[in-house]
Amino acid sequence: MKKKTIALDMDNVIADVESHYINWYEKEFGIRISKESLLGKRETEAFPDPDAIWRFLFTPGFFRTVPVMEGAKEAIEILMKDFEIYIVSAAMEFPQSLPEKLDWLKEHFPAIGWQHIVFCGNKGIMNTDFMIDDHIKNLDHFTGKPILFTASHNVNVSHHFRVNTWPEAVAYLQSTLTNELSH
Amino acid sequence: MKKKTIALDMDNVIADVESHYINWYEKEFGIRISKESLLGKRETEAFPDPDAIWRFLFTPGFFRTVPVMEGAKEAIEILMKDFEIYIVSAAMEFPQSLPEKLDWLKEHFPAIGWQHIVFCGNKGIMNTDFMIDDHIKNLDHFTGKPILFTASHNVNVSHHFRVNTWPEAVAYLQSTLTNELSH
Repeated sequence: MKKKTIALDMDNVIADVESHYINWYEKEFGIRISKESLLGKRETEAFPDPDAIWRFLFTPGFFRTVPVMEGAKEAIEILMKDFEIYIVSAAMEFPQSLPEKLDWLKEHFPAIGWQHIVFCGNKGIMNTDFMIDDHIKNLDHFTGKPILFTASHNVNVSHHFRVNTWPEAVAYLQSTLTNELSH
Repeated sequence: MKKKTIALDMDNVIADVESHYINWYEKEFGIRISKESLLGKRETEAFPDPDAIWRFLFTPGFFRTVPVMEGAKEAIEILMKDFEIYIVSAAMEFPQSLPEKLDWLKEHFPAIGWQHIVFCGNKGIMNTDFMIDDHIKNLDHFTGKPILFTASHNVNVSHHFRVNTWPEAVAYLQSTLTNELSH
């Protein structure tokens, strides 16, 4: 049977960009911003100096050094057995990030080959069975099953099915396989 | 009414990679290969030294300097009035090509913004109404209307609707609008 396809976002889903913002912000301004203070705010407006995040996003090396999201490696290893995984990142706004993101994926997720990597501007023409993303702009018009991955900026979103952690995501996706077999 | 979407390939569709191969081959080996001698052969096997093409594909500057395909600029300007155009290039195998292709698009097709550019490994999850491509591997499993753009390597392909030039492609795509209006 053909495996179902999943489009996985990078930033805030498999790459912990939020922690990376906090670390870089502390390095530059000497202030440690708490995760709690980011809740419900747009990423580019949540920090005392709102220009800093935009600057980081265009700084060479930023995307290459993002920490891996907790649980993502283990989850993807499990999911690859039953699903076809595509990494789909809306990276085109940040041209310097493209080779960095490729190198980052090669280092941290070597099992995902270049055949399954997609860099785009918007995700409007992506056609997979599932999409895991932290941004509603990518999920709202998605034709498959959208899954919102919790990030501080999206805690007040209530119109999408949500997972808070990678183990939760894996449990949900595996349950769809069981449901399918039982029908 | 929502515009229909078209996924346009880059190499051999809006970028004249075939002429670029011939020019680079002549520059390196002093031999001018005729277009006729390429007919029906895979691009990477059509030249006397088959390794040369692979080498070119990984050479910095190759993709940045490809000539624009004849008629592509005029065609895209016309089509953008009635269609939503995405550039979809299977470029991920050649990481050095990604920033070059972005710069090339910005120079030659400035009206196409980063929002509508997609770089991928395979085109299996692309969901547009039309796809114009020179490779059957991209068209065979496409769920919209596939359009084969003639290149020397695909002249013997007979199982896809074919256009030989950009004016032909425009005429066909515009005819789909008329047909729709008359129904």
